[in-house]
Amino acid sequence: MQSPVHAATLLDDDFPPDAGPERDLRRVSIHPDFWYPVAWSRDVKRGKTLGVRFAGEPIVVVRTESGAVFALEDRCAHRQVPLHAGVVAGEAIRCCYHGWTYDCTGRCTDIPYLGRERLPNGVRSYPCRELGGLVFVFTGDPALADARPLPDLSAADDRAYKTRRFGREVACHYSFMHENLMDMNHQFLHRRQMGQMKARALGRRRGDHWLEVDYSFARTEGRRPAGESIIFGQTRKESVGEGKSIMTVRTEYPYQTLRIVNAEQTVVMSLWIAYVPLDAEQRTNRTFGLLSVRRPSLPFALDAAWPLLVWFTERIFAEDRWIVEREQEAHDQQGEDRNHEVFPVIRELRALLRECGAP
Amino acid sequence: MQSPVHAATLLDDDFPPDAGPERDLRRVSIHPDFWYPVAWSRDVKRGKTLGVRFAGEPIVVVRTESGAVFALEDRCAHRQVPLHAGVVAGEAIRCCYHGWTYDCTGRCTDIPYLGRERLPNGVRSYPCRELGGLVFVFTGDPALADARPLPDLSAADDRAYKTRRFGREVACHYSFMHENLMDMNHQFLHRRQMGQMKARALGRRRGDHWLEVDYSFARTEGRRPAGESIIFGQTRKESVGEGKSIMTVRTEYPYQTLRIVNAEQTVVMSLWIAYVPLDAEQRTNRTFGLLSVRRPSLPFALDAAWPLLVWFTERIFAEDRWIVEREQEAHDQQGEDRNHEVFPVIRELRALLRECGAP
Amino acid sequence: MQSPVHAATLLDDDFPPDAGPERDLRRVSIHPDFWYPVAWSRDVKRGKTLGVRFAGEPIVVVRTESGAVFALEDRCAHRQVPLHAGVVAGEAIRCCYHGWTYDCTGRCTDIPYLGRERLPNGVRSYPCRELGGLVFVFTGDPALADARPLPDLSAADDRAYKTRRFGREVACHYSFMHENLMDMNHQFLHRRQMGQMKARALGRRRGDHWLEVDYSFARTEGRRPAGESIIFGQTRKESVGEGKSIMTVRTEYPYQTLRIVNAEQTVVMSLWIAYVPLDAEQRTNRTFGLLSVRRPSLPFALDAAWPLLVWFTERIFAEDRWIVEREQEAHDQQGEDRNHEVFPVIRELRALLRECGAP
Repeated sequence: MQSPVHAATLLDDDFPPDAGPERDLRRVSIHPDFWYPVAWSRDVKRGKTLGVRFAGEPIVVVRTESGAVFALEDRCAHRQVPLHAGVVAGEAIRCCYHGWTYDCTGRCTDIPYLGRERLPNGVRSYPCRELGGLVFVFTGDPALADARPLPDLSAADDRAYKTRRFGREVACHYSFMHENLMDMNHQFLHRRQMGQMKARALGRRRGDHWLEVDYSFARTEGRRPAGESIIFGQTRKESVGEGKSIMTVRTEYPYQTLRIVNAEQTVVMSLWIAYVPLDAEQRTNRTFGLLSVRRPSLPFALDAAWPLLVWFTERIFAEDRWIVEREQEAHDQQGEDRNHEVFPVIRELRALLRECGAP
Repeated sequence: MQSPVHAATLLDDDFPPDAGPERDLRRVSIHPDFWYPVAWSRDVKRGKTLGVRFAGEPIVVVRTESGAVFALEDRCAHRQVPLHAGVVAGEAIRCCYHGWTYDCTGRCTDIPYLGRERLPNGVRSYPCRELGGLVFVFTGDPALADARPLPDLSAADDRAYKTRRFGREVACHYSFMHENLMDMNHQFLHRRQMGQMKARALGRRRGDHWLEVDYSFARTEGRRPAGESIIFGQTRKESVGEGKSIMTVRTEYPYQTLRIVNAEQTVVMSLWIAYVPLDAEQRTNRTFGLLSVRRPSLPFALDAAWPLLVWFTERIFAEDRWIVEREQEAHDQQGEDRNHEVFPVIRELRALLRECGAP
Repeated sequence: MQSPVHAATLLDDDFPPDAGPERDLRRVSIHPDFWYPVAWSRDVKRGKTLGVRFAGEPIVVVRTESGAVFALEDRCAHRQVPLHAGVVAGEAIRCCYHGWTYDCTGRCTDIPYLGRERLPNGVRSYPCRELGGLVFVFTGDPALADARPLPDLSAADDRAYKTRRFGREVACHYSFMHENLMDMNHQFLHRRQMGQMKARALGRRRGDHWLEVDYSFARTEGRRPAGESIIFGQTRKESVGEGKSIMTVRTEYPYQTLRIVNAEQTVVMSLWIAYVPLDAEQRTNRTFGLLSVRRPSLPFALDAAWPLLVWFTERIFAEDRWIVEREQEAHDQQGEDRNHEVFPVIRELRALLRECGAP
């Protein structure tokens, strides 16, 4: 960890209106050559289908009778109706309308009233993997899928942590989500949940496809909320980073993580989160988050407190969701991005998201 | 009846993607020079009005105090507000707003605050007829109305049959409705209602404005549903067309019929159905159907079973409605018709609907 | 008051279709260089904010802790989120997201994590006044605000009258509202509330920015409703203007008034009303009305009857709202104004609204 840098240093850039000749960040499509989660594994039952969307493309996720998972374009080649309304037959999926049948590669293997010697083209298939309780698909160039690693979700499988899976649809461009999480100066938004907290940016680091920033926090007013105590332990009185804990927020394109390391250098909380565009214009995203909290020494204490933590994080998330949807709404009304960003971390994040986005 | 033809013969055409340089069938407007039902007679009470639509045109159907029915453009000439909110006065209709009054020809016959010597132009009127419990209008060239016959609805008036009147709005182009009914290979859609049935196309015939196809059916799995037994008689065990009954589906532009003739050459069921576009883009239609079932020798048996038949047909119709709305939805999303039709009957039907549609 | 003129005189103009080469009245924006009400004073509590709209511009009305009222653009300069979700801090407003702070001129006075020496531009402010229980803003050229008078709302402060404040959103262009109120030939619309009334236009007068018309009324059928009696007194049997009372409707751009003067030349009722466009296309307006009824000699009689008057005026207003929304709907469907106006008063009103509207 590098030495803290004074906030002034973090803010020493000029801040002309952040429009310039650059393309509007809110119109930059997410780059398709990555693995994106589209469903929770538990929501795709054996012998069942699930219809999902990625950036306007309808996708059917199928779990066959043997338990394998595959993903196809969610439109029958015949009459374009959704395959997710169909029937799983062994390792294949039959369209609900006329019974056209497709295997895991999307090849049409049967038209009941036609005869198998003269079958038409099938439908597109997508590389598909399961990890950490999520179903991932790769909608970009399939030749790149194998070489592209899946994200590191190891904390979710680590028994030292308890993990909450959460998420929902949020009516905004994915970039607003990244900026919201990375700019911890927005603690004012959560004043009712968190009391008055002041974030202090300590330093930032930038790599090819990633950017991260460290924060410490000081409580300026009010009491520490119980939900926060669950994360940091019941006995410690100081807030995160009051001289001791450090929060690191990282965008590693296209995912985002948030980790809190305490004074003993233990990771007490770790969040992995992805924002998956739903519509073609990418003005809505579905969020998939894994929030892992380190189990305290006292067994079951975390389990007992879990409902409170769920409630606390839901409240925070609801506030964040509300504000980013207002940002998208303003963009829709103004027809362009008029954000006037003064925080260098976010200015650099915006540049990163532009560079890494689809061309 | 001609001799059955092997299914292979019915499928011997090539099937290149059905787009070509032809215009998109889903954008072909229905031809206006026909009589279209717009309301059930029972829904237009004496001395009352009913607002309906035909392809985006608002139409008011008026039943005068003498019981006569007429149809006008549903907009007052004055301020364009709907006349259907007005008041029937004798044989005329008064606008609800300022009381402008129109007769059955659409002529403005009174403006209460103006004086009758200086009346402005009126509104458009439509030729209007009642038949079989339906109100028909003619929105095309009025000079052609008299020469154009109304459809044959005689079964609905035949005491040997019991007739069900049904219909509702369906959010799709009328062409999807025609294709749905004529392609009996879609029995798979109704597998929960009908069990596993296999349709066999026996032959098709084509005329100037019509196309018809015969089917026989074989049950491949499951039991015959009670709803179906009502139609074919309680005592016969075989399904329609199992060597004996023949179903004929006919599009006689712009209407469609379905008849089932049993081994004794008796028409056991007869359906007449019309699909009336509601919006200007014709992406929604209102269906008007007359389903006539031959009364069995035992009096009242059909009446007793009627609720079951209603339930059965509603279930079937709900499934059909769901799937054709998904077809329209796919068309809207894809911006063009990407159907990949392999069944020659439907390919010919599509050609017919294109040829007969509005230029 | 000038002498009554026969209705025929009022109608002696030709009435060609009112389209011509003139611009479509329903697309004429209201002129911004006037004071418009945007909120009721009672709805802007001390230390609170209220988000409103004027012709698509979001505006936040703030009442500071000292009770002063000011109005700003309702978007934080930083990320364009609504300031009305923020927090009033003394005489300033802090954005809810990152706490940026603005004073009553819109100047940004604090960014908590930045330092006050390098503050960015702020947001637009609007001249703002309170009168008669309404908050007015001036969205046009601010240099003209001081010279432009606020409307005369003196009746609302006169103890001789009891005033009802009412209004709601109506989904139509403001011009339909003016025409509706000024054309008293639309009494037919209210036949269920008012019985059969016949309005008689007595004469009209026109000035630079105003137009007014006098009416007398005769009851042609039915009984006088109780709601009407409240306004004219319980003991008088005749209706407004039956030889005695005169109603004057006046558009004094951009406001409208309606006054009823009885035979003794006393103003028995006075209405002031404004229609404030909400959306940028001005197809929706919010109505703010002050209805002042002269108190009768018997104290409390009017108070006792007030609920009936409220009910009566709400019914009338609901009918007017329904019909003007149908007019807007017809305009949206037809894409142009096809009104065919025959009443010279309304033709002149339309000319006035075109001339006074935004260029």
